[in-house]
Amino acid sequence: MLRSMIAGLLAVLMLAEPAAADDGYDLWLRYTLAPAPQRAALHARATSIVAPGRSPLLASAVGELRRGFAGMTGVAPVMADRPAAGAIVLAVAGSRLLDGQALPLEGLGREGYVIRSATIAGVPVTLIAANGEAGLLYGSFALLRRAQMADWPARLDERSAPKVQLRVLNHWDNLDRTVERGYAGQSIWDWWSLPDWKGPRYTDYARANASLGINGAVLNNVNARPESLTAPFIAKAAALADVMRPWGIKIYLSARFSAPIEIGKLNTADPLDPAVQAWWRAKADEIYKAIPDFGGFLVKANSEGQPGPQDYHRTHADGANVLAQAVRRHGGIVMYRAFVYSEANPDDRAKQAYADFKPLDGRFDDNVIVQVKNGAIDFQPREPFHPLFGAMPRTPLMLEFQITKEYLGQNFSLAYLGPLFEEVLRADTMAHGRGDTVSRVVQGKVDPYRITGIAGVANIGVDRDWSGSTFNQANWYAFGRFAWDPDASSAAIAREWAAMTFTPDPRFVTPAVAMMQRSREAVVDYMTPLGLHHQMATGYHYGPAPWVHALARPEWNPVYYARADASGIGFNRTASGSNAVAQYAPPVAAFYADPKTTPDEELLWFHHLPWDYRMRSGRILWDELALRYQHGVAEVAAMRRQWAALRPYVDEERFAKTAAFLTREQHDAEWWRDASLAYWSSLSRRPLPAGVPAPAHPLEHYQSITLPFAPGN
Amino acid sequence: MLRSMIAGLLAVLMLAEPAAADDGYDLWLRYTLAPAPQRAALHARATSIVAPGRSPLLASAVGELRRGFAGMTGVAPVMADRPAAGAIVLAVAGSRLLDGQALPLEGLGREGYVIRSATIAGVPVTLIAANGEAGLLYGSFALLRRAQMADWPARLDERSAPKVQLRVLNHWDNLDRTVERGYAGQSIWDWWSLPDWKGPRYTDYARANASLGINGAVLNNVNARPESLTAPFIAKAAALADVMRPWGIKIYLSARFSAPIEIGKLNTADPLDPAVQAWWRAKADEIYKAIPDFGGFLVKANSEGQPGPQDYHRTHADGANVLAQAVRRHGGIVMYRAFVYSEANPDDRAKQAYADFKPLDGRFDDNVIVQVKNGAIDFQPREPFHPLFGAMPRTPLMLEFQITKEYLGQNFSLAYLGPLFEEVLRADTMAHGRGDTVSRVVQGKVDPYRITGIAGVANIGVDRDWSGSTFNQANWYAFGRFAWDPDASSAAIAREWAAMTFTPDPRFVTPAVAMMQRSREAVVDYMTPLGLHHQMATGYHYGPAPWVHALARPEWNPVYYARADASGIGFNRTASGSNAVAQYAPPVAAFYADPKTTPDEELLWFHHLPWDYRMRSGRILWDELALRYQHGVAEVAAMRRQWAALRPYVDEERFAKTAAFLTREQHDAEWWRDASLAYWSSLSRRPLPAGVPAPAHPLEHYQSITLPFAPGN
Repeated sequence: MLRSMIAGLLAVLMLAEPAAADDGYDLWLRYTLAPAPQRAALHARATSIVAPGRSPLLASAVGELRRGFAGMTGVAPVMADRPAAGAIVLAVAGSRLLDGQALPLEGLGREGYVIRSATIAGVPVTLIAANGEAGLLYGSFALLRRAQMADWPARLDERSAPKVQLRVLNHWDNLDRTVERGYAGQSIWDWWSLPDWKGPRYTDYARANASLGINGAVLNNVNARPESLTAPFIAKAAALADVMRPWGIKIYLSARFSAPIEIGKLNTADPLDPAVQAWWRAKADEIYKAIPDFGGFLVKANSEGQPGPQDYHRTHADGANVLAQAVRRHGGIVMYRAFVYSEANPDDRAKQAYADFKPLDGRFDDNVIVQVKNGAIDFQPREPFHPLFGAMPRTPLMLEFQITKEYLGQNFSLAYLGPLFEEVLRADTMAHGRGDTVSRVVQGKVDPYRITGIAGVANIGVDRDWSGSTFNQANWYAFGRFAWDPDASSAAIAREWAAMTFTPDPRFVTPAVAMMQRSREAVVDYMTPLGLHHQMATGYHYGPAPWVHALARPEWNPVYYARADASGIGFNRTASGSNAVAQYAPPVAAFYADPKTTPDEELLWFHHLPWDYRMRSGRILWDELALRYQHGVAEVAAMRRQWAALRPYVDEERFAKTAAFLTREQHDAEWWRDASLAYWSSLSRRPLPAGVPAPAHPLEHYQSITLPFAPGN
Repeated sequence: MLRSMIAGLLAVLMLAEPAAADDGYDLWLRYTLAPAPQRAALHARATSIVAPGRSPLLASAVGELRRGFAGMTGVAPVMADRPAAGAIVLAVAGSRLLDGQALPLEGLGREGYVIRSATIAGVPVTLIAANGEAGLLYGSFALLRRAQMADWPARLDERSAPKVQLRVLNHWDNLDRTVERGYAGQSIWDWWSLPDWKGPRYTDYARANASLGINGAVLNNVNARPESLTAPFIAKAAALADVMRPWGIKIYLSARFSAPIEIGKLNTADPLDPAVQAWWRAKADEIYKAIPDFGGFLVKANSEGQPGPQDYHRTHADGANVLAQAVRRHGGIVMYRAFVYSEANPDDRAKQAYADFKPLDGRFDDNVIVQVKNGAIDFQPREPFHPLFGAMPRTPLMLEFQITKEYLGQNFSLAYLGPLFEEVLRADTMAHGRGDTVSRVVQGKVDPYRITGIAGVANIGVDRDWSGSTFNQANWYAFGRFAWDPDASSAAIAREWAAMTFTPDPRFVTPAVAMMQRSREAVVDYMTPLGLHHQMATGYHYGPAPWVHALARPEWNPVYYARADASGIGFNRTASGSNAVAQYAPPVAAFYADPKTTPDEELLWFHHLPWDYRMRSGRILWDELALRYQHGVAEVAAMRRQWAALRPYVDEERFAKTAAFLTREQHDAEWWRDASLAYWSSLSRRPLPAGVPAPAHPLEHYQSITLPFAPGN
């Protein structure tokens, strides 16, 4: 009887496990049963939980610890009133449980935490301590991360606090549930069934974010519809805020600048008009009544057709401040985007944000933060850092990354963005001198900022695996970890993610991380090597289209960016060209002004050079360019082989989907190489160097390819 | 050690179970562990499986049996070469395993089956026998259904075969993954990642359909895009066909009539043009090369703006036949929709399909079947049966139901459509005499049809529970069961579904089925009682809008259908009106011509009557109408109470979601009642009868309500 019962349980267990474990829904919070040897040790360290208090944040922390250890050890820790051996103790500063512990809680803020192996009343426990319950929540996830990674030293002593205040996801989600530049299915916000039905996915979204320290979410697209600010949608947003609150996440809304006209029935949205100012104040009051901890507004104005203050001959500062004044008495903020360029402005698009915003430095209210994309164009596979960083000493700047891979192969490429994030954050603005990195600017350490923040355009949708592919989950993960610590290492983050998402077995983690770390450079090489940019197909931004030249606005055309002809290729942004280099601090400007000091990776971003320009490698530019495309293709082929070798460590569904996507990526990499070289060689009239195959088809073939119904457009 | 192992397993099992079981993904194929007493008995009857042969259909049957019994008993049946006690034996006619069994296989076709408790070589087994492997697949699901329902008699003796050949889902799914009239998320067809990635959901879709006997799926919207017939999309469809084939499901495509122009570069789509005929033949050849068992085309032509043969002054028969000739040498068919009405035709919209198609009887090729909606307008909560049924003796008619509840509350209403399907199928056309029901017409028993079929517009999307709500799954289920047996009972089907989807416990099933059986009539009453129809809001068809009168085409306006004024309400379709009644067989026409013989439920469909018309109840029409609205509201309130009482039998997530949706339905029912009565009373100028509350708001309030971003439009 007992034997058959065990057999039955085992059978069910083995049957049930793959279905529950393999579809990617659990992200990096899988909490799978640890191998038998570690399981007992893990259980011995999580026999019980002591967590005095009743706040929702604390309940989230405790619930997650129980869920996690139950999954990893097979036994949920019991709740206890006082510490016993193996207890996990959660306590805020001032708690008697911390008496005599001498913990370094100072300077950690409300969100930081200390985790320490300690002795309380003579018994060994693990202590999670913080100044606020948010810190206990983040500390709990940090402890779970160690357990998942099988990285729990005998003497735990960890201290961590976020280096940035606002760590925010921007959802470019429309109210009809389409997602601009989304490649993971519809929006997770089911506006139609809100506020009545709040499904468990919302909570799982909040859990995943909290596990990374993300503390804000902008629910709707920056290309905002005015209806998002009407009463029915405020009620829906409030229902979501109720779900997010126990996980330390504030919600924000994108505001459409012309909403006072469209839903307020005013005849202007002029930010200096008293009726407009009153309308925004009343609207803010209405929102805060429903959502007392509403975070504030995100605004895209006078950019790509959106309305804005310039429609009324007012400045962006005027535009930001009218909204800031509406939310300030409630403690809200305004995130105002600097991503602006005008169809009427013939100047280099890369220069326009700086030109518009630099003169406004110091003109923004103190609850405004200006949100600046990592580069001056638009989330390309590689861009030099945005020249506004370091150039706005009196205006807090919020760094905006794009987690969704609009320009980097979307859901099919494996590209891990950790190295991209890291490269930007480590870039040296030299604002006041060497070492004034973008990271330090964003942390408010270069110039003292009242508010600090990092935003990421989410790659989240209703796809079962949330992000369209398993490896895209790593970009959500990496964004959150970099937002917590902009000085983190992309490789260390990749190791965490790979261990938690698959297995901590180093036979998996080491090669998987190596593959991830080279994956983004592969995309750069097969799409836009040597500083090329914006060569993607029109609209859906998928696949190569370097030949496109006839779109209405010049800067919509790839030829605008590559400027290739019989004589050479590249965008001259030096003094003899657009002089965009002058927007950087003088030492950086000097560095980029000379092709000899400009790194190969950014060469054609700043310089127009002849096809036979001699590169550092000794090769001429044409040969170097062709070989880079080929190298990108070879890298994808290598990743495919690497992934195949990892099969023993990966469950069937996630293995197969990744393999299928790598097949597609290899196809696309070859397509990029062949189409690009077919076009460039029609201009350069030079033979391909050895090792680079001739394109499989004539140029006309590549020019005829269209992808109807491509997603995310 | 053993004890702790069991404890660990139990803990994991209990933790894992809700996550796997509660989100509705498994539909009615949950295979949850049977209670201990039944489990052993069930295992004793499924110790092993004997299934000689290697076909994909057989592998599906065996795989499903193993999965099912493993789930229900905790132990997967072993595969065996020869029968032992408790074996399940699968064998096609002619197999030695059936020697001496004298099974009634004749007349069952390739898809029917026999299930019987039998003795083979002296041991007791359960035999599933059939003429073809599809029958074994369907028999296996039938056996699993009995196990799930705890309805496995000591002596099994079941014989079943489908009464209809084509049992087909119509997906109104667009190539951009939007779904017309879809309320369950995006299309499950991820065209963008096909053909490279075929996720497990496709297989689970096929399994669910096969469990019901559904044997066909039209992948794309009847409002078709020409791109669906281009090479890339044919390759994607072929990948799906590969998944469906082992589950007995053929795929079909909706064809756009003007595709020869749009993708064929011809300057006409005239069906009598030889170049057009050649183009369709070549296109069919191309498709069959990729999909050898392609089912054929579904066509919506000259309807609601779609192109069609009338553009070239040809008939619908000409239009159908050009496609039929293209697929006939491959064994394909054409399903040609009779849902046509013209903006240029001032006649009663309800008459137009009959007027167009009746004269074409006998003019269609023998591989054409004409697909007719259940009623003459458009999938209303209640419609009299379509007058074409019984009127086309020489043309096979395929009945089209709408499973997705475009006009019945979409995802929020609980409405179970079984009674609607049943009501239509049992309606008596009296084509040649009493008893010539729609069911018998569709089965080809009234007039001998070469092809028989039933189609259902799918309610399936990527929502985790597939259909937008748990109870909407019952409509997919009921459609499939009625397609297999149009003479089935809606209550019996509801019992099966409720038992399999929740629990066979009669304390749950009996009240749940009672609730389901009255749920659709509640919708009729609170939306469109007494034969009213098409009173829904414009475009999204959600909520009341009886006042709408100014849309461009007369038949788009609700006022066209209700014809209400100070004197009375209803559409006179008798000889003194549009005379639509004359399209029915004479006895039916006579029955509907007289308000005294017309059932209350269809009264205002056929008659315009004064507000003080005396009803069977003795009440005047106005009072009866008002009380029906009120009754609909009361029914929803009763369902809410009933559901609350069923809480002990339902897991948390599915309970909460259904409860939330019932709350919304009650809100909507009250909205329908109040808005409708506010409008009707503005015309009737009569007081509401006792028991009917006054509308909560003035009429203008209801007229001002809009629902931006409502789904499915």
